[in-house]
Amino acid sequence: MKALIHVTLKPGVLDPQGKAVQNALGSLGFSGVDGVRQGKFIEIDLTESDAAKARDNVEAMCKQLLANTVIEDYSIEITE
Amino acid sequence: MKALIHVTLKPGVLDPQGKAVQNALGSLGFSGVDGVRQGKFIEIDLTESDAAKARDNVEAMCKQLLANTVIEDYSIEITE
Repeated sequence: MKALIHVTLKPGVLDPQGKAVQNALGSLGFSGVDGVRQGKFIEIDLTESDAAKARDNVEAMCKQLLANTVIEDYSIEITE
Repeated sequence: MKALIHVTLKPGVLDPQGKAVQNALGSLGFSGVDGVRQGKFIEIDLTESDAAKARDNVEAMCKQLLANTVIEDYSIEITE
Protein backbone atom coordinates (compact mmCIF):
# COMPACT_ATOMS: atom_id res chain seq x y z
CA MET A 1 0.00 0.00 0.00
CA LYS A 2 0.98 3.59 -0.36
CA ALA A 3 0.47 6.43 2.11
CA LEU A 4 0.19 10.02 0.93
CA ILE A 5 0.80 12.47 3.75
CA HIS A 6 0.34 16.22 3.79
CA VAL A 7 2.01 18.14 6.59
CA THR A 8 0.95 21.78 6.77
CA LEU A 9 1.45 24.57 9.27
CA LYS A 10 -1.54 25.17 11.51
CA PRO A 11 -3.56 28.29 10.68
CA GLY A 12 -2.09 31.28 12.49
CA VAL A 13 1.45 29.92 12.56
CA LEU A 14 3.79 32.23 10.67
CA ASP A 15 5.14 30.73 7.44
CA PRO A 16 8.34 32.59 6.45
CA GLN A 17 9.01 30.14 3.61
CA GLY A 18 5.58 30.79 2.11
CA LYS A 19 6.07 34.53 2.60
CA ALA A 20 9.39 34.34 0.74
CA VAL A 21 7.71 32.51 -2.15
CA GLN A 22 4.94 35.13 -2.21
CA ASN A 23 7.50 37.96 -2.37
CA ALA A 24 9.46 36.17 -5.09
CA LEU A 25 6.27 35.71 -7.15
CA GLY A 26 5.61 39.44 -6.78
CA SER A 27 9.16 40.25 -7.93
CA LEU A 28 8.64 38.06 -10.99
CA GLY A 29 5.57 40.11 -11.93
CA PHE A 30 2.83 37.71 -10.83
CA SER A 31 -0.05 39.74 -9.44
CA GLY A 32 -3.20 38.58 -7.67
CA VAL A 33 -1.40 36.38 -5.15
CA ASP A 34 -3.13 36.83 -1.79
CA GLY A 35 -1.16 34.32 0.21
CA VAL A 36 1.18 31.36 -0.02
CA ARG A 37 1.56 28.54 2.50
CA GLN A 38 4.16 25.85 2.02
CA GLY A 39 3.99 22.40 3.50
CA LYS A 40 5.45 18.95 2.99
CA PHE A 41 4.16 16.10 0.89
CA ILE A 42 5.46 12.67 1.84
CA GLU A 43 4.84 9.41 -0.05
CA ILE A 44 5.55 6.18 1.82
CA ASP A 45 5.53 2.70 0.26
CA LEU A 46 4.34 0.17 2.82
CA THR A 47 4.51 -3.61 2.77
CA GLU A 48 1.35 -3.74 4.97
CA SER A 49 -1.66 -4.89 2.94
CA ASP A 50 -4.39 -4.04 5.46
CA ALA A 51 -5.54 -0.43 4.96
CA ALA A 52 -6.69 0.11 8.56
CA LYS A 53 -3.43 -1.20 10.01
CA ALA A 54 -1.44 0.85 7.50
CA ARG A 55 -3.30 4.00 8.55
CA ASP A 56 -2.67 3.35 12.27
CA ASN A 57 0.98 2.79 11.53
CA VAL A 58 1.33 5.97 9.48
CA GLU A 59 -0.58 7.93 12.11
CA ALA A 60 2.05 6.88 14.65
CA MET A 61 4.84 7.85 12.20
CA CYS A 62 3.31 11.32 11.81
CA LYS A 63 3.04 11.86 15.55
CA GLN A 64 6.54 10.59 16.31
CA LEU A 65 8.56 11.90 13.38
CA LEU A 66 6.92 13.41 10.35
CA ALA A 67 4.92 16.27 11.86
CA ASN A 68 5.58 18.64 14.72
CA THR A 69 2.05 18.54 16.10
CA VAL A 70 2.58 21.70 18.16
CA ILE A 71 2.63 23.81 15.02
CA GLU A 72 1.71 21.41 12.19
CA ASP A 73 -1.36 19.51 11.04
CA TYR A 74 -1.17 16.35 8.99
CA SER A 75 -3.56 14.39 6.81
CA ILE A 76 -3.15 10.81 5.65
CA GLU A 77 -4.50 9.12 2.55
CA ILE A 78 -4.00 5.39 2.05
CA THR A 79 -4.07 4.08 -1.53
CA GLU A 80 -3.25 0.81 -3.30
CA MET B 1 -9.62 30.77 -5.98
CA LYS B 2 -7.09 28.51 -4.39
CA ALA B 3 -4.33 26.53 -6.09
CA LEU B 4 -2.98 23.35 -4.53
CA ILE B 5 0.39 22.41 -5.98
CA HIS B 6 2.40 19.25 -5.46
CA VAL B 7 6.07 19.38 -6.41
CA THR B 8 7.74 15.96 -6.39
CA LEU B 9 11.08 14.64 -7.53
CA LYS B 10 10.95 12.86 -10.87
CA PRO B 11 11.18 9.07 -10.66
CA GLY B 12 14.83 8.02 -10.69
CA VAL B 13 16.11 11.20 -9.08
CA LEU B 14 17.81 10.43 -5.78
CA ASP B 15 15.93 11.73 -2.74
CA PRO B 16 18.35 12.01 0.20
CA GLN B 17 15.70 13.71 2.36
CA GLY B 18 13.28 10.82 1.81
CA LYS B 19 16.07 8.34 2.48
CA ALA B 20 16.87 10.10 5.78
CA VAL B 21 13.20 9.89 6.80
CA GLN B 22 13.15 6.20 5.88
CA ASN B 23 16.24 5.52 8.01
CA ALA B 24 14.80 7.51 10.91
CA LEU B 25 11.54 5.53 10.74
CA GLY B 26 13.62 2.33 10.85
CA SER B 27 15.52 3.59 13.90
CA LEU B 28 12.21 4.32 15.63
CA GLY B 29 11.16 0.71 15.12
CA PHE B 30 8.73 1.13 12.22
CA SER B 31 9.05 -1.89 9.95
CA GLY B 32 7.51 -2.51 6.54
CA VAL B 33 8.60 0.79 5.02
CA ASP B 34 9.72 0.11 1.45
CA GLY B 35 10.47 3.65 0.41
CA VAL B 36 9.90 7.30 1.25
CA ARG B 37 9.81 10.24 -1.15
CA GLN B 38 9.44 13.76 0.09
CA GLY B 39 8.08 16.63 -1.93
CA LYS B 40 6.56 20.06 -1.44
CA PHE B 41 2.95 21.04 -1.05
CA ILE B 42 2.15 24.67 -1.82
CA GLU B 43 -1.20 26.42 -1.32
CA ILE B 44 -1.71 29.73 -3.11
CA ASP B 45 -4.66 32.07 -2.60
CA LEU B 46 -5.48 33.83 -5.84
CA THR B 47 -7.69 36.83 -6.50
CA GLU B 48 -8.36 35.50 -10.04
CA SER B 49 -11.92 34.14 -10.31
CA ASP B 50 -11.59 32.36 -13.68
CA ALA B 51 -10.37 28.78 -13.12
CA ALA B 52 -8.72 28.43 -16.55
CA LYS B 53 -6.83 31.70 -16.21
CA ALA B 54 -5.83 30.80 -12.66
CA ARG B 55 -4.42 27.48 -13.88
CA ASP B 56 -2.41 29.14 -16.67
CA ASN B 57 -1.03 31.61 -14.17
CA VAL B 58 -0.06 28.94 -11.65
CA GLU B 59 1.47 26.83 -14.43
CA ALA B 60 3.76 29.76 -15.24
CA MET B 61 4.61 30.18 -11.53
CA CYS B 62 5.59 26.51 -11.33
CA LYS B 63 7.82 26.72 -14.40
CA GLN B 64 9.51 29.95 -13.33
CA LEU B 65 9.85 29.55 -9.59
CA LEU B 66 8.12 26.76 -7.72
CA ALA B 67 9.54 23.69 -9.45
CA ASN B 68 12.91 22.84 -10.90
CA THR B 69 11.58 21.09 -14.00
CA VAL B 70 14.91 19.39 -14.69
CA ILE B 71 14.46 17.14 -11.68
CA GLU B 72 10.95 17.84 -10.41
CA ASP B 73 7.39 17.22 -11.58
CA TYR B 74 4.48 19.34 -10.49
CA SER B 75 0.71 18.96 -10.43
CA ILE B 76 -1.85 21.72 -10.02
CA GLU B 77 -5.36 21.55 -8.61
CA ILE B 78 -7.58 24.63 -8.71
CA THR B 79 -10.38 24.84 -6.14
CA GLU B 80 -12.85 27.45 -4.93
